[in-house]
Amino acid sequence: MLTITRPTLLLNEKQCKANIRKMVDKAKRFNVDLVPHFKTHQSAEIGEWFRAFGVESITVSSVKMAEFFAKEGWGNITIAFPFNVLEIPAVNRLLERNVAITLFAVNGSTIERLNKELVAPINVFIELDAGYPRSGIPTNSISEITQLAQLIEKGAMTNLYGLYCHPGNTYQTNSVAEIKQIWTEGIKKVNTVKLHLGELGEGLKIRMGDTPGCTLVENFEGVDEIGPGNFVFYDLVMNYLNVCTEDEIAVAVACPVVAKSAERSEIIIHGGAVHFSKDHLFDGKEQKFFGEVVILEEEGWSSIIDGIKLTSLSQEHGVLKATPEIFETIEVGDVLGILPIHSCLTANLMKSYLTFDGQVINHLEKL
Amino acid sequence: MLTITRPTLLLNEKQCKANIRKMVDKAKRFNVDLVPHFKTHQSAEIGEWFRAFGVESITVSSVKMAEFFAKEGWGNITIAFPFNVLEIPAVNRLLERNVAITLFAVNGSTIERLNKELVAPINVFIELDAGYPRSGIPTNSISEITQLAQLIEKGAMTNLYGLYCHPGNTYQTNSVAEIKQIWTEGIKKVNTVKLHLGELGEGLKIRMGDTPGCTLVENFEGVDEIGPGNFVFYDLVMNYLNVCTEDEIAVAVACPVVAKSAERSEIIIHGGAVHFSKDHLFDGKEQKFFGEVVILEEEGWSSIIDGIKLTSLSQEHGVLKATPEIFETIEVGDVLGILPIHSCLTANLMKSYLTFDGQVINHLEKL
Repeated sequence: MLTITRPTLLLNEKQCKANIRKMVDKAKRFNVDLVPHFKTHQSAEIGEWFRAFGVESITVSSVKMAEFFAKEGWGNITIAFPFNVLEIPAVNRLLERNVAITLFAVNGSTIERLNKELVAPINVFIELDAGYPRSGIPTNSISEITQLAQLIEKGAMTNLYGLYCHPGNTYQTNSVAEIKQIWTEGIKKVNTVKLHLGELGEGLKIRMGDTPGCTLVENFEGVDEIGPGNFVFYDLVMNYLNVCTEDEIAVAVACPVVAKSAERSEIIIHGGAVHFSKDHLFDGKEQKFFGEVVILEEEGWSSIIDGIKLTSLSQEHGVLKATPEIFETIEVGDVLGILPIHSCLTANLMKSYLTFDGQVINHLEKL
Repeated sequence: MLTITRPTLLLNEKQCKANIRKMVDKAKRFNVDLVPHFKTHQSAEIGEWFRAFGVESITVSSVKMAEFFAKEGWGNITIAFPFNVLEIPAVNRLLERNVAITLFAVNGSTIERLNKELVAPINVFIELDAGYPRSGIPTNSISEITQLAQLIEKGAMTNLYGLYCHPGNTYQTNSVAEIKQIWTEGIKKVNTVKLHLGELGEGLKIRMGDTPGCTLVENFEGVDEIGPGNFVFYDLVMNYLNVCTEDEIAVAVACPVVAKSAERSEIIIHGGAVHFSKDHLFDGKEQKFFGEVVILEEEGWSSIIDGIKLTSLSQEHGVLKATPEIFETIEVGDVLGILPIHSCLTANLMKSYLTFDGQVINHLEKL
C-alpha cells in the first residue's frame, strides 16, 4: 500500500493505458490518424506510453509545451492554439532542430509575419468555428476563409495543411445523441468549407479535436485526423456528459482528512483550489460541487460514494458535506480519494503523478 | 521595456514593498505582532523583502511550504491549517533542525497523536469559528474548546499558545462598515472564549488572520497578532471589497493577443485557466468575469480599461469581450495586462514573477 501524507495525484496506470489503447484502436478501425493532445497529461513518461502504441505525431496547446516534448524526442508537433506571432523566434528554434511544426491560423496578419520571419516551412491549419465560438473562423465566413487559405498557400513558409475544428459545444450537453449530432453537423460544415475552397481545398486534412465526439461517435466519414486529449484520464465532466464510465477515470487526488464538524456534518480535507482548480459541476439538486469521493484501495479505488461530495474549496482547504451515516465512517487521519471535475487542470496543478506501484511520474512543470 | 512573448506574471516591486511597509507600520502603530502569511507569494525573495522590514515569524498553509521557508532560513513558522497527523514525521524533521513550529488544532485525537509522536515541543493555536464556518470550533462551543485546551496544556509536547480566528466572512460583503463590524464581533467572541477558559486562558495570544480586516480596521483592541497574506499583492476581489485601491494591486498577468473576432467584438489572448485559475467576480450587470484589462507601461500599468473584460477562460485561451471602440484599439501581437481576480491562485499557477527591471523572482514550485 502507498504511504500518502499530503495531497497526491494518483494515476491508475492500467486504466490510463486502457484508455489510450481504446482510442488508438478506434482510430485504426475507422482509418483516421490519431494526433493525441498532450495538454492533459503534460508528461514525458505518459507520452512514451502513447509512443509504444505507435503514435508519432502529437498535439500541444502552447509553444512552451512544444519545446518540452521536442526535447523528449517528439518530431512532429501541432500547436493547437491561434498562433501567437511573438513566439516566432521560439518556433524558429524548434525548426532549427528539425522538429516538424503545424500551427493554427485565424488571421492574415499572422500569416504575413510567419512568412517574413520563419527560417523553415511549416504546416498550417485554418481553425474553424462550426458552432462553438471561441477562436476559429465561422464556417459560414467563406470569403474570409478563402482569402486566408490563399494567403497561406501563397506564402513560401506556410503550407496549407488542413481545416481544424474543436466542436467544444459537445461539452455543453449531456445527451449522447446531441454530442453525436453536434459532431455530424460540425463535420458537414467543415467539409462544405473544403468544397467551397475548390482547388485550394483539395487534399486538405480535416481534423476534429474534442474528447466527447472522438469517444462517442462511430462514424468518422469526412474526418482524416482526430486530436483528443482528455480521454487519457477522463474526469467527472466526461462522466457527467456520459462520455466515459466512472471506471474509465484514471486519476484521483488522495487527500488527508484533517478535521470533522459533527454539527454541520462536514469533513475538512487537505485538498483545495491549488490542487483541483475551481471547476465545478451541479448535482441533481442544483448544488455546486468540486469533486466526488472514492475509497482508496490497494490498486485503485472504489466506485463513487453516495452521500458525500466536495462542496467547497479555498486555497488549501476542501470541505466535504456528508450524510450523518457517511460522516460517521470517516476519521481524522484517513486519506480519501477525490475524483476531479477537470483532470487537465488538476494535473496541471499537481505536477506529478504517483502510480499504485509507487512510481513517481513527472509533469512538465516538475522538470 | 520588457520583452514578453508568452503569459508572464508581472510584479510591481515598488507597490509590493509599499504594501508590505504599510502593513508593517500599521502593526507597529497598533502594537500587534505581524506574522504575515506567505501562501500568497510563496517566494524566497519576497520573503526577504519582509525580513528587511524586521519580520521574523511567518505563517504558511502547508507543511510543504514550511519546509520550503525553513530552508530559506525562517526559524519561526505557523502552519495555519488544521494539523494533518500524517505530517508528524515531516514536522519532526523541521523540529530537529530547530525550527520553532506553531500548529492549529481543532480536535483532541490530533493532540493525542502529537504528544505521542513529536520529538520536541510545539506551540498550538486553537482555531475558532466566529461566524465563518470552515475548519474552526464555533466560539459558542465552550465546553469543547475547554476540553481541547486542557488536553493541549496537559500534553508534554503541546503548549497552548493562543486562539486563532480567520473571519473569512469578511470576504462575503463589500461594505467597509460590515467588514469592520464582522471583525469587531469576531474579536469580541474570541475574547469571550479566552475569559471562559479562566486560568487556561491567561496569557493566550489572540491572532486574527484575514487581509480585509487587517487592512481596514483601525482598532486592534483585544488582538495580539495579525496574520494576513493577500495584502502583499492584493487583487480584484480585494478591490471589489473596497479593501484596496486599484493602484495597490501589485501583480498583473501579461497576455499576448492572438486573435480577434469583429463579429462578436471578442479578443482572444493566450491566458487561460492554467494561468488564472477559475475564480471570478460578477460585474454590475451580473455578468461573470475572470479579470480586468490594463495597458502595460514602462514601469507598471494603466488604470483598468472600461469597456473590456476577461469573460471566459478555457485551459490556455482567454476571451475578452470589448466595446466596438475598445476592440478597434487592440491588435493581434499586442500584449495586454490582466489584473487577476485572486492573486494567490494566479501566483501559485504562474510560478515565477518578472519585475519591471527584468528580474525573475522565483516561487516555491520553481525551485
